[in-house]
Amino acid sequence: MKTNLLTLAALFIASVTTLHAQQNLWQKDANVSPEINADNSVTIRLYAPDAECVKLVSDCVEGDTAMTRRENGVWEYTSEPLASELYCYWFNVDGIDHVNDPMNSYVMRDVGSQMNYFIIPGERGDLYAAQNIPHGTMAKVWAEVSDGRERRMTIYTPAGYEQSKGRYPVLYLLHGMGGDEDAWAATGRVAEIMDNLIAAGKAEPMIVVMTNGCTQHVAAPGYSHEGMWRPYMSGSMDGSFETMFPSIVEWVDDHYRTKTKRAYRAIAGLSMGGFHSMQISKEYPDMFNYVGLFSAAIFRGKEGIATYADLDAKLARQFKQGMELYWIAIGKDDFLYDENVRYRDLLDKAGYPYTYRESDGGHIWRNWRIYLGEFAQMLFK
Amino acid sequence: MKTNLLTLAALFIASVTTLHAQQNLWQKDANVSPEINADNSVTIRLYAPDAECVKLVSDCVEGDTAMTRRENGVWEYTSEPLASELYCYWFNVDGIDHVNDPMNSYVMRDVGSQMNYFIIPGERGDLYAAQNIPHGTMAKVWAEVSDGRERRMTIYTPAGYEQSKGRYPVLYLLHGMGGDEDAWAATGRVAEIMDNLIAAGKAEPMIVVMTNGCTQHVAAPGYSHEGMWRPYMSGSMDGSFETMFPSIVEWVDDHYRTKTKRAYRAIAGLSMGGFHSMQISKEYPDMFNYVGLFSAAIFRGKEGIATYADLDAKLARQFKQGMELYWIAIGKDDFLYDENVRYRDLLDKAGYPYTYRESDGGHIWRNWRIYLGEFAQMLFK
Repeated sequence: MKTNLLTLAALFIASVTTLHAQQNLWQKDANVSPEINADNSVTIRLYAPDAECVKLVSDCVEGDTAMTRRENGVWEYTSEPLASELYCYWFNVDGIDHVNDPMNSYVMRDVGSQMNYFIIPGERGDLYAAQNIPHGTMAKVWAEVSDGRERRMTIYTPAGYEQSKGRYPVLYLLHGMGGDEDAWAATGRVAEIMDNLIAAGKAEPMIVVMTNGCTQHVAAPGYSHEGMWRPYMSGSMDGSFETMFPSIVEWVDDHYRTKTKRAYRAIAGLSMGGFHSMQISKEYPDMFNYVGLFSAAIFRGKEGIATYADLDAKLARQFKQGMELYWIAIGKDDFLYDENVRYRDLLDKAGYPYTYRESDGGHIWRNWRIYLGEFAQMLFK
Repeated sequence: MKTNLLTLAALFIASVTTLHAQQNLWQKDANVSPEINADNSVTIRLYAPDAECVKLVSDCVEGDTAMTRRENGVWEYTSEPLASELYCYWFNVDGIDHVNDPMNSYVMRDVGSQMNYFIIPGERGDLYAAQNIPHGTMAKVWAEVSDGRERRMTIYTPAGYEQSKGRYPVLYLLHGMGGDEDAWAATGRVAEIMDNLIAAGKAEPMIVVMTNGCTQHVAAPGYSHEGMWRPYMSGSMDGSFETMFPSIVEWVDDHYRTKTKRAYRAIAGLSMGGFHSMQISKEYPDMFNYVGLFSAAIFRGKEGIATYADLDAKLARQFKQGMELYWIAIGKDDFLYDENVRYRDLLDKAGYPYTYRESDGGHIWRNWRIYLGEFAQMLFK
């Protein structure tokens, strides 16, 4: 077989001059990047023979980091041994402020930017990586909801759902500004986190529904008839998403084998999605027994909107019903830290119970993956 | 609302020094790229103030093309007016041979390389773009097949499938070497092509099953417990995929509302997937009524494999049954052109009927999208 494959490769190369779209397949692999070393440090490389200055921008190292040019034209950086995590990076090359690593085909999009990533194995990294266990299904579906337009959602169903005739609890998981129905699925590692937690018996099998929280768009950029705009910090904090939400729940209950009682419904979100989770759970107090506010943009709603009025009275109604879990998580360096303090003061003064989780770091995906991993383990038990 | 959003943005910026992973969100948009102009030319830009030489590599222009540096440090290229199509590109910057466009967040992967893309509207481009019509579902599912391992597949179900109780015909659509279960879905634009053809009444509603044709792996890189290897020109041309195939069909028939008669089954693939389609359809002549060989690597099987032996006798058995369509498509410049001539000679001498489609161009995704758009319209009518 090897001979045949090599023959095929040789033939590909011979025809490559007319094939722009494929020629990069054949570049030399001498500059492997990233390379995870035995001590859990990482070596990142870029072949840039004529560059004057190459910097690494990454959450695996503090600040922009100058890389070192080797004689062969490859710029190189080796980190200290790293804690187990998923890390992102890109390059700054002679003033181009965002160059992806051509040797690393793994990218995740954050709003308008593609970032390369790698995973350092270990407890946390393994949670974000595919393992040899049963896997759930990730589906991109279209749902007609209360505004009469078909909207795109990502829905995770756990391993065994198709074979089972049983009903499942549901977590509604909401993105932040500039996000969409793809954000949690790709950058949030939902399939990997849920598969791994469920297989380990640490989380109950559940459906996870990732909607698009920008009511002005029906889908992520490129999947909507509105075309391929550059993703920007769009969002809906004008009551429109909250008003639409019951019809989303209704659609999910109509199309999936869900447990429809409040006891089996959770809602959580990051940043704007944390704001949405707070608002939706108090607008519809009969709906959710578990609420998760991840780095929530608590006090950012548009003024003069009925949905956002009468906060005290609506919270009183919600907390009177009681909830199994009202979970507030934020990083010490998050720019929304102070308004989460203010919100907790409000809850404290009213005597409403909640669980507080403070982490290191700021308003970043690393924290939101951590929060999801923790929150999911507390649901439906 | 605008004020609130701006406030939020300002707060993000204030905290950005600690947030490597998000800082690129805030770069200036003065250098929009790509920009589709009114005459269907495209302007592509890269802010690279200190670069000495920036070239564009794209299938929208012949050969690598020097870009022009403007005074503001933005390098620019404007094409001639372009035919309606989906075009790919990247940059070559001072010897870095593959720099993605940081202003264009749309990428598609071809084996190990991420390519930026854009679409020029018009008849063909519109076929590859999301339109305001009913949409099908794209799901990443895991199936246990005959080798006892769970394998990942992409499955498209057409709009209306969930609401219907009816049964649907199935197209099995196979990738080439270096591809996987994600290739047709992402780079092949299957959801867009099928949604658009079905909504226009040009194709019958059908299920499209995109399997992984590399039996050594259970999933695309990153989705397998084998980890995050750099995608390479892997494939299975040793009989193992063909042997496994009936259990894939069985799994699909067990889990989806399929029409299971031969009349309602089609198989097609590109390059290695064309080879697989030829082999599988002749190994199991009771299975497929429609066969599509797109730029097929006809004579590339490993030697000494029973599946690939007795070609003449097996083809005789297959063509004796007759098929609604045996479709062979290839580009004039394809490096596999000669062996497709040889295969057609073989069919001609035996008097076996087939339909031949010769296009411009070589062994490229542009052609495979075109072939799918044409082939899908001929099925199940």
